[in-house]
This record gives sequence, structure tokens and C-alpha cells, in this order.
Amino acid sequence: MMAKALQIAARGAHLTTPNPCVGAVLVNHGEIIGYGHSQAAGGAHAEIMALKMAKSRAPEKILGATAYVTLEPCSHFGRTPPCANALIGAGVDRVVAALRDPNPLVAGQGLARLANHDIEVAHGLLAAQAREHHKGFLSRMIRKRPWLRVKLAASLDGRIALNSGESQWITGAPARADVQKIRAQSCAMLTGVGTVLADDPQLTVRDLPAQRQPQRVVVDSRLRTPVTAKILQILPEAVPQGKTHILTTNLASEHAVLRTLAEVKELPEQSGRVDLLAVCEYLAQQGFNEVTVEAGGKLVGALLQAGLVDEIILYQAMSFIGRGQAMADFDLAALSQQYKPSLFDRRMVGGDQRLQLRFTDPNVVFAESTLGE
Amino acid sequence: MMAKALQIAARGAHLTTPNPCVGAVLVNHGEIIGYGHSQAAGGAHAEIMALKMAKSRAPEKILGATAYVTLEPCSHFGRTPPCANALIGAGVDRVVAALRDPNPLVAGQGLARLANHDIEVAHGLLAAQAREHHKGFLSRMIRKRPWLRVKLAASLDGRIALNSGESQWITGAPARADVQKIRAQSCAMLTGVGTVLADDPQLTVRDLPAQRQPQRVVVDSRLRTPVTAKILQILPEAVPQGKTHILTTNLASEHAVLRTLAEVKELPEQSGRVDLLAVCEYLAQQGFNEVTVEAGGKLVGALLQAGLVDEIILYQAMSFIGRGQAMADFDLAALSQQYKPSLFDRRMVGGDQRLQLRFTDPNVVFAESTLGE
Repeated sequence: MMAKALQIAARGAHLTTPNPCVGAVLVNHGEIIGYGHSQAAGGAHAEIMALKMAKSRAPEKILGATAYVTLEPCSHFGRTPPCANALIGAGVDRVVAALRDPNPLVAGQGLARLANHDIEVAHGLLAAQAREHHKGFLSRMIRKRPWLRVKLAASLDGRIALNSGESQWITGAPARADVQKIRAQSCAMLTGVGTVLADDPQLTVRDLPAQRQPQRVVVDSRLRTPVTAKILQILPEAVPQGKTHILTTNLASEHAVLRTLAEVKELPEQSGRVDLLAVCEYLAQQGFNEVTVEAGGKLVGALLQAGLVDEIILYQAMSFIGRGQAMADFDLAALSQQYKPSLFDRRMVGGDQRLQLRFTDPNVVFAESTLGE
Repeated sequence: MMAKALQIAARGAHLTTPNPCVGAVLVNHGEIIGYGHSQAAGGAHAEIMALKMAKSRAPEKILGATAYVTLEPCSHFGRTPPCANALIGAGVDRVVAALRDPNPLVAGQGLARLANHDIEVAHGLLAAQAREHHKGFLSRMIRKRPWLRVKLAASLDGRIALNSGESQWITGAPARADVQKIRAQSCAMLTGVGTVLADDPQLTVRDLPAQRQPQRVVVDSRLRTPVTAKILQILPEAVPQGKTHILTTNLASEHAVLRTLAEVKELPEQSGRVDLLAVCEYLAQQGFNEVTVEAGGKLVGALLQAGLVDEIILYQAMSFIGRGQAMADFDLAALSQQYKPSLFDRRMVGGDQRLQLRFTDPNVVFAESTLGE
């Protein structure tokens, strides 16, 4: 039943930012009487959706039912009333959560409130899978920074472009379509001003029925983003998309025009550029759970060196390019310092290889013990 | 039965240089009465080995038997008498060859002689697999150059070493052990003087019960190989290993000492370095069927640009190194010119990925039609 709740949660994944996308299944004597997942922020939570379905299908079976939820029901009044109250009011017998909610506003109080109303509670069922699903939210709650994913597309000799800047295309159409899926599941896309100046990307979701667009963020220490940059444009479609964020060390030289087009924010400086930990903390403050980086070797290299990269998705074209732009630009004093992520997934996408590499294991970093128990 | 012949051929693969390692199976009414593979050059050919076994096991069944051979039986007196004559003398009924021998000394005459003695002949059975097995010999006979394989070991960002030269180790022990197998199956190892000066490699087979050592060849346009280089040393073990070949444009400046230690050969110059096609032709003249390149980015890049690379075996460590030495050093004017080999095999070797990439398809390049039919 928890596996079903996780499946349902995946259907609405990443549309609920800044909320986690929870899945809930209501069961009475083995019969599923309702299920649902969290709606976009401000909309109903998963438990409410599942109760609603059960009320229309089998209202008499809610009394005595068990609720399986991927995350502890909330206990606080946020944009919506607490789900714990709704479950108590509906008369369920038992609530099983995969994970407790690390949100300090919940943090065990949801389960405690249920227990105080004589509802049997349990947690930890399929916790590993739930940590994988909720990694962005857990990261933001526990580490105060998003789950940071770097997307790279390169040749086998590690080039993302020729020295001329030509980069279209190294990987094939199926790999590029796969990138659109990653963008669609990202709360925000992060890039550097170098990429804005060189490639003028939009970093929007294309060719997919996107229910929302990721927010866009530019690391731009010296505020060089042109007011004509495509990344500042907001798509005409009726999908929510806020102004692009520009993170700089140098608000003094800010253009008045740029401020009308973008959210310009001054952050602390570190070695002549925006401090990247401050960037990640800012992204978390914006409510971004999962952030994907599409940038040049300088920003990628700096993020790696700062230890802020959780995951790399590398598309490798089966090609050799020779001299060109490196995927990650940094200097090691010795090979013993090389960055060695774990291989998480490896498969072909069209004629290209897709490697998913992890620096962070959600089941280690977001384990219950990190919540102070 | 031909599959069995190919299996047997593989057992002796690469020990017969410059001869192909043929496999032969003798069958009488479905019963295998003998089999064998070619011995080291000067020793018995596969057909003779198979006949020898049959004579000791079931001499009465040789009359009327069918011989399956991976390559057309030879018809000329070389180091040994022609196998076609032996098959005729033994009284076999039928000979099935996977491939005809492109060697101009044979070239259909083996099968023709058999047919003239009322032996039924056929060819083409499992020809594709046989072309894969015999690709080195076919390359040398048809193209007058060896099958050239480049071995690379790099990080995911395409570095084979730090700029300091540090390269031990990027890949793990299982990948390095796999490299020993590639060396063992190579007639010769090819490197550049840059690698000799930087790494002082031996390029010998280690930690494997090698029945022979590959010959070693250094591209050294300006004759800079030090007389103390390890690549000039001949292993004390009782395995055949000739003097290392040094290919230069510059025999005039040759050291007298170096000539006593190595086979120094002057080859034509092309853009200030030894002409690489001339290098490949020289390797073929030495009788080398399969040659493996372990070299730096300059020689690898130049071989790619010269279109001389048939295959790349790339070991990829799941690591990022940043700035460092590139695996292939060349300049493209546009991405449309990138080198795009076919992915032939892809697997993990320990924690590293092993990609086998082909620029040459033996079944296209060494097809019968290339033999003038």
C-alpha cells in the first residue's frame, strides 16, 4: 500500500513547490477506498484528496480505515488546515507514514496528535524509497539548501563545446528530450552569466505538456546579464513562472531596467564571486526543493569544489571532439583529490549514454538519525 | 561445427603472429573426431593439428569426414607444407571454410585445389564471426596495415593525467588487469616518445601467464628515446620478444648506442613528424596483425585525424579531475567534423566503465566484395 502511495506521489511530483508532493492511500480491510497526491501549493494535501475520494466512493468505510502516507501528516495551519485534524475528524483507525516530516513546524507533532486521539501510528515503511522521492524537500528542510543536480552533455573526451562556443549539437534528440523531463521536474534552473552571454538560453521546458515552468536563476557576480537576454523573458503561456533571479555581489552597479525585469539580489562575495553556499541557501529560502544546474565549466567546477553538488546527470555522446570547452574547470593538486561520485544509474538514451552519478545518498544524509534521534 | 572451430581458434588467438590463428574441426557423421588450432609461426597449422588428433583417436573415420576451418586451407609452401595437400592426402570428403584467405599466396587456390581433387568445398559459414576473429590478419592482408586499437583510460571529464603528469591511478585494479589481457592479445604495442619521456613505460604483459610478449614500437620523430628507457629492455623470461622498434624521421642524429638497443628505422616525414600511414604500413611489414596504442593525446589525436584508428577501448573512471591532459589533442573547425565511432560493447569492469568503440566494421571493410568479387 505504501508502494502505491509512492506511485501516486510520483504523479504529482514537483508541481507542489515549495511543498513536498505526498501520496496517500486509504484502505479498509485490504480494499483501497481512496487515494490522492498533494496539489499545487495552496491546494489540497494528499490526505484530503484521498478522504474526498473515499467520501464519494465508500463513505461508510472511512471509519476504521488505515491511511498510508509517504510523509507524516501536517499538524499546523499553513496555507491549508492541518491534515492530522482531517484524519482525526474522518475517523480513521490507523496512520502509517513512510517518513516523519523534518519540517520544524511538524517534526513528529502530526503523528503525536494522531496518537493522542487514539489513532494507531507507525512510520518507517518504505522509508528508503520515500527519502528518494522526497529528497528535494528533505534537503531543504534538513540542510537548508536544495537537492542540487548538475546536468552535463559532453563528448567522450569531456568537451561540452568547441573553443568557438559551438555546442549544437553534441548529444542527440532523445537525450535532449530527456533533459526537458529533468527541467520539468526541477523547481528552478541555475546557470551562470557566462552561459547567458555565450548561449543566451531560455532554460524553459519545451515540447512537453508542462504544468509549470521552473524558475530561473543566474549567478552573475558583476551583473553582466543583458536586459535583452532570453532568460529574462516570461513565457506567454498560462503557466506560473516568476521573474528570473539574478544573484550578484555588486548591486551598486545594477541597472534600473534589469531590476524591473528580474529579481536582483546581492549576496556575499567569496574569492571575487558570489558565495555559492549563500546561493544555495537563497535557493532554499525561495522554496526550491530540487534545482538543476545547466552551466559552463567554471560554475560547475566551482560548485563541485564547494561540495554543493548532490547529483550529476551526464549525457555522453559517443564522439571525440578534441580541443574544446571542459565540463568542469578546476585544479587538483593530486589525483587523490579527484571527485568520485557513485554510479546510480547507467543507460542508453538514443545513441547517447546517460550516467546518473551521486555525491549524496539521501538514505544516509536524510536518515532519521540526522533529525536528532 | 564452425562455431566450435571458432572457439578453438580463440584459444590460440594472437600467438601465431604473423599467421592467422585458424581453428579446424573434423567431423564424421556428426561425430567430432579431431580439432586443433594453429600453433606459433613455423609450427603446425590447425588442419594438421586436427588430422593428427583424428589419426590417434579414430583413424578409420577420416575417410569421408568433413573439415570445418575458419579460414581457407593454405595452398602454398611457406614455413610448412600446404594444408590443402594434407587434407587431400588424408581422404576427407568435404571442406567448409568460414572465409576465403585474402593472402595473395592463397586467395581461393586452396579451395580450388581441393575441388580439383573431388573434395566438396564451401565457404561463408559464420563468415561474420570469422571476420571478427581474423580481423587483424584480414586487415594486414587486405589493407596492408594492422588492425589499430587505441586504449584509453580517463576520467568522465576526459582527462588521462593531471597537468603535472600524475596518472597513477585514474582507473581501478580490475580495469588495469583487463588492459593486460589486451596487451597479451596484441602483436605489438605502439606509443610515442612523449609517453616514453613522461612515464617511462615497459608496455609488457604483467601478472598474466603470457605465452609471448607483444613487440614494442615508439614513434620518435626526433630520436629522443633515452638509452635507459625501460621500453628498450627485453624481459629476462623465456618468452620471445624482439628489440623495440623506434620509428624516426631523423636517422642522421641517431645514437650508435640506441641502434644496438633497438631497431631504428627512418620513415617519411609528414608535417614535421613521422608519417603515420607509413608507420602503419611498417607495422604490417613486420607481420603485426593487431596493434594496440597506449599513448598521449598528441599521438592519439594524430592517429584519429589520419583516419588510422579502427577501434578504441576506453576505460572510464567514475571521476572528475578538472584541468589535466586531454585524451585526444586535435582541433576541429566545426562540430559536424567530430569523430563518431559506433558503440560495440559497453560494460563495467570493477568500478570503471569499459567502452569498446569501432571506427571500422570488419564485416564491411573485410567483406568478400573487397577481395574483388
